[in-house]
Amino acid sequence: MIRSHQRTPAQIRPVNIIRHYTKHADGSVLIECGDTKVICTASISEQVPPFLRGQGQGWLTAEYGMLPGSTNTRMQREAAKGKQSGRTMEIQRLIGRALRAAVDLKKLGERTIQLDCDVIQADGGTRTASITGAFVALHDAIEKLIYQQLIETSPITDHVAAISVGIHQGVAVLDLDYIEDSSCDTDMNVVMTGNLGIIEVQGTAEGNAFNRKELDTMLDLAQQGIQELIAIQRKVLLAK
Amino acid sequence: MIRSHQRTPAQIRPVNIIRHYTKHADGSVLIECGDTKVICTASISEQVPPFLRGQGQGWLTAEYGMLPGSTNTRMQREAAKGKQSGRTMEIQRLIGRALRAAVDLKKLGERTIQLDCDVIQADGGTRTASITGAFVALHDAIEKLIYQQLIETSPITDHVAAISVGIHQGVAVLDLDYIEDSSCDTDMNVVMTGNLGIIEVQGTAEGNAFNRKELDTMLDLAQQGIQELIAIQRKVLLAK
Amino acid sequence: MIRSHQRTPAQIRPVNIIRHYTKHADGSVLIECGDTKVICTASISEQVPPFLRGQGQGWLTAEYGMLPGSTNTRMQREAAKGKQSGRTMEIQRLIGRALRAAVDLKKLGERTIQLDCDVIQADGGTRTASITGAFVALHDAIEKLIYQQLIETSPITDHVAAISVGIHQGVAVLDLDYIEDSSCDTDMNVVMTGNLGIIEVQGTAEGNAFNRKELDTMLDLAQQGIQELIAIQRKVLLAK
Amino acid sequence: MIRSHQRTPAQIRPVNIIRHYTKHADGSVLIECGDTKVICTASISEQVPPFLRGQGQGWLTAEYGMLPGSTNTRMQREAAKGKQSGRTMEIQRLIGRALRAAVDLKKLGERTIQLDCDVIQADGGTRTASITGAFVALHDAIEKLIYQQLIETSPITDHVAAISVGIHQGVAVLDLDYIEDSSCDTDMNVVMTGNLGIIEVQGTAEGNAFNRKELDTMLDLAQQGIQELIAIQRKVLLAK
Amino acid sequence: MIRSHQRTPAQIRPVNIIRHYTKHADGSVLIECGDTKVICTASISEQVPPFLRGQGQGWLTAEYGMLPGSTNTRMQREAAKGKQSGRTMEIQRLIGRALRAAVDLKKLGERTIQLDCDVIQADGGTRTASITGAFVALHDAIEKLIYQQLIETSPITDHVAAISVGIHQGVAVLDLDYIEDSSCDTDMNVVMTGNLGIIEVQGTAEGNAFNRKELDTMLDLAQQGIQELIAIQRKVLLAK
Amino acid sequence: MIRSHQRTPAQIRPVNIIRHYTKHADGSVLIECGDTKVICTASISEQVPPFLRGQGQGWLTAEYGMLPGSTNTRMQREAAKGKQSGRTMEIQRLIGRALRAAVDLKKLGERTIQLDCDVIQADGGTRTASITGAFVALHDAIEKLIYQQLIETSPITDHVAAISVGIHQGVAVLDLDYIEDSSCDTDMNVVMTGNLGIIEVQGTAEGNAFNRKELDTMLDLAQQGIQELIAIQRKVLLAK
Repeated sequence: MIRSHQRTPAQIRPVNIIRHYTKHADGSVLIECGDTKVICTASISEQVPPFLRGQGQGWLTAEYGMLPGSTNTRMQREAAKGKQSGRTMEIQRLIGRALRAAVDLKKLGERTIQLDCDVIQADGGTRTASITGAFVALHDAIEKLIYQQLIETSPITDHVAAISVGIHQGVAVLDLDYIEDSSCDTDMNVVMTGNLGIIEVQGTAEGNAFNRKELDTMLDLAQQGIQELIAIQRKVLLAK
Repeated sequence: MIRSHQRTPAQIRPVNIIRHYTKHADGSVLIECGDTKVICTASISEQVPPFLRGQGQGWLTAEYGMLPGSTNTRMQREAAKGKQSGRTMEIQRLIGRALRAAVDLKKLGERTIQLDCDVIQADGGTRTASITGAFVALHDAIEKLIYQQLIETSPITDHVAAISVGIHQGVAVLDLDYIEDSSCDTDMNVVMTGNLGIIEVQGTAEGNAFNRKELDTMLDLAQQGIQELIAIQRKVLLAK
Repeated sequence: MIRSHQRTPAQIRPVNIIRHYTKHADGSVLIECGDTKVICTASISEQVPPFLRGQGQGWLTAEYGMLPGSTNTRMQREAAKGKQSGRTMEIQRLIGRALRAAVDLKKLGERTIQLDCDVIQADGGTRTASITGAFVALHDAIEKLIYQQLIETSPITDHVAAISVGIHQGVAVLDLDYIEDSSCDTDMNVVMTGNLGIIEVQGTAEGNAFNRKELDTMLDLAQQGIQELIAIQRKVLLAK
Repeated sequence: MIRSHQRTPAQIRPVNIIRHYTKHADGSVLIECGDTKVICTASISEQVPPFLRGQGQGWLTAEYGMLPGSTNTRMQREAAKGKQSGRTMEIQRLIGRALRAAVDLKKLGERTIQLDCDVIQADGGTRTASITGAFVALHDAIEKLIYQQLIETSPITDHVAAISVGIHQGVAVLDLDYIEDSSCDTDMNVVMTGNLGIIEVQGTAEGNAFNRKELDTMLDLAQQGIQELIAIQRKVLLAK
Repeated sequence: MIRSHQRTPAQIRPVNIIRHYTKHADGSVLIECGDTKVICTASISEQVPPFLRGQGQGWLTAEYGMLPGSTNTRMQREAAKGKQSGRTMEIQRLIGRALRAAVDLKKLGERTIQLDCDVIQADGGTRTASITGAFVALHDAIEKLIYQQLIETSPITDHVAAISVGIHQGVAVLDLDYIEDSSCDTDMNVVMTGNLGIIEVQGTAEGNAFNRKELDTMLDLAQQGIQELIAIQRKVLLAK
Repeated sequence: MIRSHQRTPAQIRPVNIIRHYTKHADGSVLIECGDTKVICTASISEQVPPFLRGQGQGWLTAEYGMLPGSTNTRMQREAAKGKQSGRTMEIQRLIGRALRAAVDLKKLGERTIQLDCDVIQADGGTRTASITGAFVALHDAIEKLIYQQLIETSPITDHVAAISVGIHQGVAVLDLDYIEDSSCDTDMNVVMTGNLGIIEVQGTAEGNAFNRKELDTMLDLAQQGIQELIAIQRKVLLAK
């Protein structure tokens, strides 16, 4: 088994995070994980959804999309079809939950942060790249709120990053690309904090069921990969 | 902490499965897990979706819904709103994946089994009850195919059942009802086979992140609960 | 011509009404008319639609649906299709009009009662069974309002029940099942009050036109059937 | 009670039917019943819906709409809202059923006649005017088929016309205009053939329930009105 | 090349404008340009869209539709399809922009004028006929506002009319009918004021690109045609 | 008046075109016109829409979208709203028409080229940048067809590019950015070929009407700008 980017089973793909990628959104990031490229923006609005009005807390939500030309075979445009697929809905709900876990919504105040993750090139792991990149966009939007003196201290409680892991041809592998993802037996997405707390685990047996030992091996790999990703986030955020 | 039905943290709610609940569908089951009640039907059609035509294999898919009056506060009818929610889509995709894992689609032949899980009373765990009940409806539909001599042997490879587990007030608890589900820190749904293979693990930290040890405790509880559920499935299927 | 349940042309099917069928809705009924089974729930909300705000009166409206597996051949799920069929709309408008005729909306106060009629098994006459069952659910919801001292006296002015009648193979028959309904020349749905006032008459010639004498015979049959249904409603409501 | 057009309770409004009103459709009629004006077109297509293919018979269906400016207060455009209202669906289903009752679909051959009834000015009775006018448009489309030698003899079996009747301030009145319709206790639409066979009866108590005697009086009035309408249809169709 | 209505290349089709065509809308016009017939209504409502609230100015917007039977081959009804086509949206946006250019929205006050242009017979140039006719309907609605003393002076700043022009078989022709429109190389729609100011120019090469000289010739023709249309508008508006 | 990028009225913004921007689509380009950035992809499929089947010719069509975070204030995601706006439809129809004018569809063979233009950063002129960039993506997709020997010679007949021009504060200006576009009196988009043939002219008076002389000045500017854009296209396409 030869992996893309000459990787061993336990290696993640090269990661590149570009901050301030576009100029309008409050936070804007291009994240590249190997050949997967996602634009993540964070937009602040000074209101909250109806169910939260007057409760002195904020909200954070996410949407996800893929450019029609981002995939191997062109995907139909969801705006033209008139509805988002179940997969899209599932992913954007996951991104929202993952990032909310990193924010103290009370400290955010009565405002909403809207994250948008749009895949411009897909090669596996678009949902996990979205989460890892959206964290940086979120950070930059929060920094702007602080700079504008709208809030005093950051409501971000910890880093959040995500990675996929799977059993491919009997071997546990970290950070699957599209070819691995399409042919693996088991696929698991893990979201963790900088503190190594687990926020989300979603493991699915595509072919054969997996056992507890395989689950443990995959979680070990995921934890290591997320530590690397968070180190990259930290480094990128130190730069001005 | 007093649990509904005077349960200990490791106990599941009383389960009742009624086969042949309605008369038209090829398989039809009412499953009651405590106060959660779901009608699961399996309908066979002698064709497959376009992407599978001519490949000599079958398909299995699922849809999920809640009656508007099934919940504490009336839910808006999705047919009237004109779209299914992200939650609905996520759940029906999960049910479909879980049951496909129990079927050898090649042995099914070029036909589709459509599972419908409709909640008539909700009290937590509707998606896991749907999976456990749908397995029985699926079994009865397959039995009908064999009886009609459309297939010779059953394409079902193993039992499948599902249960929720969570960390509630610091304690790992099995089979959460609605009140527990709404207030727990972590909520995990687990789908396993009769052989104790894991088909799906979906764990989410609603409040604080959880650690590997908590994950292990929850998986132990889930495994035990699923064994009980499969024992109930077996008993129900023995009866004529 | 042999009718289901060994009935004469003028006999209705066995009727069974179970109150308090599910636990969340303010009124909840399972009605069985022969093999037709409908869950009818009534949900109270303390607001009225915009066009009635501030006018000191209440509102009552209804929605109708069929579980996909409730029919002979599986029906497509309307929530998945993204729209309700013309037939569904027609039926839910009929149910709403019929029940509004039984309620003094001024006495209800500024609140809305939402009726939901969901067919879990269909064998003809689902819309009339819905009306007959929804009346009981409505009654129970109103009783709850009185019990909670939100209103003093019941705004219900009279019983309401409904039945179908038709000309089948030249004979006027009461309470058609699916087979009769599919093959009859004329099909009529009648809604009446306990006082034998007519609320709605909808007669359609599917094949040959019908004449005034046939119309009269059908109305006589319908009146008799509705009297029997209202007697059953009364008996069920006496029970505690 | 003074009625529009100085009518007695038993008089219909002045009726005007203009054939060949527009040039593209196979049949095209403007019908004016008092101030109610409807354009009815009939369009032939040489195919049938999937459920009828290869069965050697034709189909007839109808659609209904109102121009936004046709009503007292502007109605929202259904095309812009993205869905047809329940009222619209109910009406177009009625028009289709009514006209199908006038046609031997076997004799029509494997083709579809699509009727479109679009209200350009509304003053009550738009659905009945649509039926009465659509019959003439249908006739002209059929005549064209005969002229083109696509069919030999007309599949039309009888005239069809429709009228509304109601109880207004205690008096049975024929052919209600908008003001009468909005304030009447009971409103009934009746569709009959030239032979005085009843095709459809739809009576609704908007306020108080009505009794059998009132129903009879209304049916007598309706029958008389429909006879007048059919006389007008005959006269218009004699003209070349 | 023989043109419909025995026209020379520079001649417009016979135009007929009937005011007060229907009775409910505040302005209502039937415009006939040759065989193209459009009903244009103007409806006033005493509110503005959210984005203009409290700004002391009015709004004007337009919608466009075609009756299904208005075209050579029946068009699908957009209300039934559940969405307006791109062509429809493009046209109604054009009509709205064109008429807004004729109105001082500040002088209109905080109210909205909704224009509806519905084609009852199509033979080319429906969007330009809509603009020319909608101007007259707008004028009549404004006159009603003045008559009701809701505004003092007319906010209409100038006449607005529109015409199509094209290059057909190498010749520049004015006011194309459907056959010319379908087969021309270049098609241009021009909207101008009474003062010969250009409000909108939309020229499209369907086949070969066109050059500046051809553009100039077409604009000359359009200007002449619009002058004739505005003369007709003036004459019609003088009549009481 | 100071223009962005220190431009004179007749200067276009700096243009940058990156070919092969993403790896999956058959042609993929990032075009930057000042701060406006659009990803244009071209995807080939080996079939044509139903209306062209069996006619020995190909098809080309376009879709357009904006990332939610691409604009000053976040735009709602059209996929989430469930429909494309009128503006989006208008723009994608324009892009499709413009590029079809550059291709001999007969020489393309029975295949479809789908262009997708997705704005990642908007600063005015997104539709014209889309056309100019899409031409290059189209070129690269065609080149791939030739390389794969699916066609022998290129069906592209000429370059196509587009630019906006307007009257801003009384001065004719070329290539408007967002601020100029929002406040100009007249806005015109022009599409031309390498041969200076006009494919599309769309001029709109947002405020005051414009006259023939202003139109001429704007067309002169546009022609000059398009010549510069086509020179850039040529240069980019020479590079390997």
